[in-house]
Amino acid sequence: MSYGRTAIFAAVSCNRFIRQFKNALPYVFGTATTIAYCYTHKPFNKHHATTLDSFKTDVSETYPDKPLESFMAEPITNKDLLQKNSYQARMEVFILKLQKQLCQSLEDYEIKQNNQVRFKVDRWTREEGGGGITCVMQDGDVFEKAGVNISVVHGKLPVQAIEQMRARGHQFVARNTSLDFFAAGISSVVHPRNPHVPTIHFNYRYFELVDVDGKIHWWYGGGTDMTPYYLNETDCKHFHLSLKETCDKYDNSYYSKFKKWCDDYFNINYRSNERRGIGGIFFDDLNQPDQESCFSFVKACANTVIPSYIPIVKKNYQQTYTTQEREWQLLRRGRYAEFNLVLDRGTKFGLQTPGARIESILMSLPPVAKWKYGWEFKDDSPEMKLMKVLKEPKEWV
Amino acid sequence: MSYGRTAIFAAVSCNRFIRQFKNALPYVFGTATTIAYCYTHKPFNKHHATTLDSFKTDVSETYPDKPLESFMAEPITNKDLLQKNSYQARMEVFILKLQKQLCQSLEDYEIKQNNQVRFKVDRWTREEGGGGITCVMQDGDVFEKAGVNISVVHGKLPVQAIEQMRARGHQFVARNTSLDFFAAGISSVVHPRNPHVPTIHFNYRYFELVDVDGKIHWWYGGGTDMTPYYLNETDCKHFHLSLKETCDKYDNSYYSKFKKWCDDYFNINYRSNERRGIGGIFFDDLNQPDQESCFSFVKACANTVIPSYIPIVKKNYQQTYTTQEREWQLLRRGRYAEFNLVLDRGTKFGLQTPGARIESILMSLPPVAKWKYGWEFKDDSPEMKLMKVLKEPKEWV
Repeated sequence: MSYGRTAIFAAVSCNRFIRQFKNALPYVFGTATTIAYCYTHKPFNKHHATTLDSFKTDVSETYPDKPLESFMAEPITNKDLLQKNSYQARMEVFILKLQKQLCQSLEDYEIKQNNQVRFKVDRWTREEGGGGITCVMQDGDVFEKAGVNISVVHGKLPVQAIEQMRARGHQFVARNTSLDFFAAGISSVVHPRNPHVPTIHFNYRYFELVDVDGKIHWWYGGGTDMTPYYLNETDCKHFHLSLKETCDKYDNSYYSKFKKWCDDYFNINYRSNERRGIGGIFFDDLNQPDQESCFSFVKACANTVIPSYIPIVKKNYQQTYTTQEREWQLLRRGRYAEFNLVLDRGTKFGLQTPGARIESILMSLPPVAKWKYGWEFKDDSPEMKLMKVLKEPKEWV
Repeated sequence: MSYGRTAIFAAVSCNRFIRQFKNALPYVFGTATTIAYCYTHKPFNKHHATTLDSFKTDVSETYPDKPLESFMAEPITNKDLLQKNSYQARMEVFILKLQKQLCQSLEDYEIKQNNQVRFKVDRWTREEGGGGITCVMQDGDVFEKAGVNISVVHGKLPVQAIEQMRARGHQFVARNTSLDFFAAGISSVVHPRNPHVPTIHFNYRYFELVDVDGKIHWWYGGGTDMTPYYLNETDCKHFHLSLKETCDKYDNSYYSKFKKWCDDYFNINYRSNERRGIGGIFFDDLNQPDQESCFSFVKACANTVIPSYIPIVKKNYQQTYTTQEREWQLLRRGRYAEFNLVLDRGTKFGLQTPGARIESILMSLPPVAKWKYGWEFKDDSPEMKLMKVLKEPKEWV
């Protein structure tokens, strides 16, 4: 199978950057090659109880002493460059480590069930520069499907893309010239088996563009959002509170602004404005007040994924559930597939990009989904309780 | 629940007409109302062996003596108009009868299994004129999900849509004026449970537009295509031969032209040009050599659905199948959902139409679908045998 393009565009489902590059990226990225090996990472043979139970993570961006123990596969960039203190290097090391940590956290649950299912690791590179690592675990007892992607890509941004950036309002972008760019990001979707455990999605990314005068322009973007099948208010509050606490450390206006942005984005408009889930945060073009703060904020958000979500998994994954509850989960997953295929700009863009690594783009799709004509639930049912919140997003904290 | 718009645009998944109306139909159709009753049609209590076993159907367009025995619900248009000999009336009566006959043919299989599952009938109307009848049967032993829709709508075509028609090349369409239109169509998707029985989709439609001089312009469009999960060459040949024989009665060039059109349309381009199924026929804008011939041809095509498909159901629905075969069917249904949500112009248009009857539009989605990251089958497996034909459409007759 021939793969190509960059998984950051598979990964970065909500990237405004994508919009401006629509129809341009084929020219940006050319043809790429998958190194389609199954990287055999060392199975995690102990339960990382300390990390998980304390609900704390500290994924730093320092290049590790033993990289192959800290990453799911060889880094994309060479070691010398990664050991430099650039924001590019720090972002790559950070997402490599976070990818490992998250895969570890998820595999850990399968290990506890004595299940042999593990992450499959596909590391791929592309001719024009950079590559990615796609990790997918399927058919777990706890996680029916979990994907954790990173990509680190660079190259020339063509004139067409530049013109689209100008249209978007980037005044520093000159006419009729291609520019160097760099993009690094992590993205993930986790579909648990138990309907009482929500699905989670997040992506965080860093972007650089060099203008004609050689000046580097940069910004960060990303978000985390949760899709429960049954509404557990305590869990929803824990999730949103985790995000808010992280946001508040940086700017008191962030949480409410980014929460609304998230609700607006993950909206299935043709289903009478039914949201995909209970939201979370979503932001783009972040380059204020300074780069260190922005990077620190993005790291903090990404580091909030595990403590905001894994406790909810831990609390609920052993709950019993009925056939009806499973059925409802599958119907809601139908909506998840609809959102990703019909509305998600990143997915749509990726599918329109000739030679894109489709398997990485569509790893976000649920393992199983159902559609039923005209389903009905009682007004006071747990299913309808969820629907009400999806139709009218709630303030959780 | 408030429903609206016209199911012909749910129904007519491949209608070029839709493209030209993109963004215009909200203005065309305004708000509509579902008469959301469950029309209790008389259960079919005998096996229609004669009709099915002879593989012949003769659905005429003559208004029946006992309409409620011949239709799934009250016609959309009133009886006086339907008894006139207009092409509008004849088309409506024809699709009403065909809807009943197909529902009957499908329900018949559930009856043979002593299954109580029957078609749910939703008849709806819209304020601006016309309405539709959506029939869906779910969770059958033989048919996991089957939808048969008709719609008959009329009203004013707004300036914006007219401009789009002009852009498409319709010289008779004047600038800056709205025009009267009429559209009637039938569409259906049948998802059988057994992986050895293919999925079928068809739609046939009639369109009229009145220009500023009061002259009526008309055309027909439609198609039938089949999506097997396992390739049975005899069945594929039977299906294509049935279509070819029908086409050949009208024009020797039709089959090859419309077969290619079908292969080109049902193409998942981002999956390395993987076709949705083994195709069939697909055409639009048919208005030559004369209206009686066109109508006769469309009727003949629509009347070919049952004899081209039901024998394949009959032959295969009792085959045993393995878990792996079921799994493969569900993976292929994932592709079906992808095509409908990402690529199908009718579906995309429908979803973009505010207030559209989403349940009618998305009745085409499979009852259950799966997505698996990086699945692999052996080169000489039956699964790969199908894949080869999907990648390179074959001449079956």
